[in-house]
Amino acid sequence: MRLALLGGTGDIGEGLALRFARDTEHEVLIGSRDPEKARDAVESYEERLADAGASGDLKGFANEMAADRADVVILSVPPYYAGDTVEAVADQLDSDTILVTPAVGMKGDEDGMHYHPPGTGSVTELVAQRAPDDVPVVGAFHNLAAGKLADLSTEFDLDTLVVADDADAKGTVRQLAEEIEGLRALDAGPLANAAEVESVTPLVINVAKHNDGMHDVGVKWI
Amino acid sequence: MRLALLGGTGDIGEGLALRFARDTEHEVLIGSRDPEKARDAVESYEERLADAGASGDLKGFANEMAADRADVVILSVPPYYAGDTVEAVADQLDSDTILVTPAVGMKGDEDGMHYHPPGTGSVTELVAQRAPDDVPVVGAFHNLAAGKLADLSTEFDLDTLVVADDADAKGTVRQLAEEIEGLRALDAGPLANAAEVESVTPLVINVAKHNDGMHDVGVKWI
Repeated sequence: MRLALLGGTGDIGEGLALRFARDTEHEVLIGSRDPEKARDAVESYEERLADAGASGDLKGFANEMAADRADVVILSVPPYYAGDTVEAVADQLDSDTILVTPAVGMKGDEDGMHYHPPGTGSVTELVAQRAPDDVPVVGAFHNLAAGKLADLSTEFDLDTLVVADDADAKGTVRQLAEEIEGLRALDAGPLANAAEVESVTPLVINVAKHNDGMHDVGVKWI
Repeated sequence: MRLALLGGTGDIGEGLALRFARDTEHEVLIGSRDPEKARDAVESYEERLADAGASGDLKGFANEMAADRADVVILSVPPYYAGDTVEAVADQLDSDTILVTPAVGMKGDEDGMHYHPPGTGSVTELVAQRAPDDVPVVGAFHNLAAGKLADLSTEFDLDTLVVADDADAKGTVRQLAEEIEGLRALDAGPLANAAEVESVTPLVINVAKHNDGMHDVGVKWI
């Protein structure tokens, strides 16, 4: 399978790229608005993999070209770019492409981070609204500990929650997620349940901030 | 210390009563609007403890009397009664009484459970608004797996997140929570961070519904 990580040079994109490259046989396409930046990221990820005694199949492209070639497109961009990025690659998506969104709207103040969804109720639903009608949209990878994910010397035992209205697409993304070592993908229901999943992300940041030795927190549902 | 569980005959009240009675030396006062119902609950809890080879110091009272005698008052009532229950016992609270609220506003539809906070932003903040000004309010015990908590044959390893503006009260409640075996109490910051904590409760219900073998889910932050 070919996976595209649009905005794959950012925080969560970096961790997912490294883990998918190391732990799976899939081709990982790093997308960026600037293809040069994508190719630089690939070079740096390949070095990081080599340092960890691993390797992977990584290539860098402009977002549109990465989306065009991929079976699963992961929108690892900041939440305020999510809608526009979907529209920028809309012509490259079709019913055979699964669009995955991990973005979360948050705002911080002196008390901590707070969930701040768009008017659609969640970023996940905003992405579904902006995507072409026939493209299945899946919310996943929202609450991962980005630092743990990107540090290949760290083993973890964490969960990600997956929401989607399309059962096949949800199943594919859950299987894909579980190919990452130590990651379990649980079903949190339809897209309409995305807000509660997304709002865990500001919470993990607050928990990380207020508890010693928990600077990079993930979640396990037990 | 004396703990009062107002609405201690309900779901989460039952589990907390049994665990505090079994695992701590504290006197556990079960409160109900109907004192007879509180005494019946105590009798049933004592039987359950005996069945588990344990015992505890439990007494049943009307809510007002339980609140009057307690050092820590836990409002284990449904969210729509939380504000009124605080006002009903307001004269029995003072700056030496810590008021603890585990209630969460939710509504369900065909998709699942959704977070449905009051206009104050969270039930925790609503309780703080309705409590006398000098009474320290702490949010805790929101996302516990009620079934696991009430089943004394079940051992667990779960977290509860604690929010409060009063550092001393927060510290006392965190210590108290950790006297329950297998429970860790993490700091999630001030009361303003309560909404993100509360919204995990509908999420655990959705996760329980959509995943085989997870009918009573709790959370561990790792």
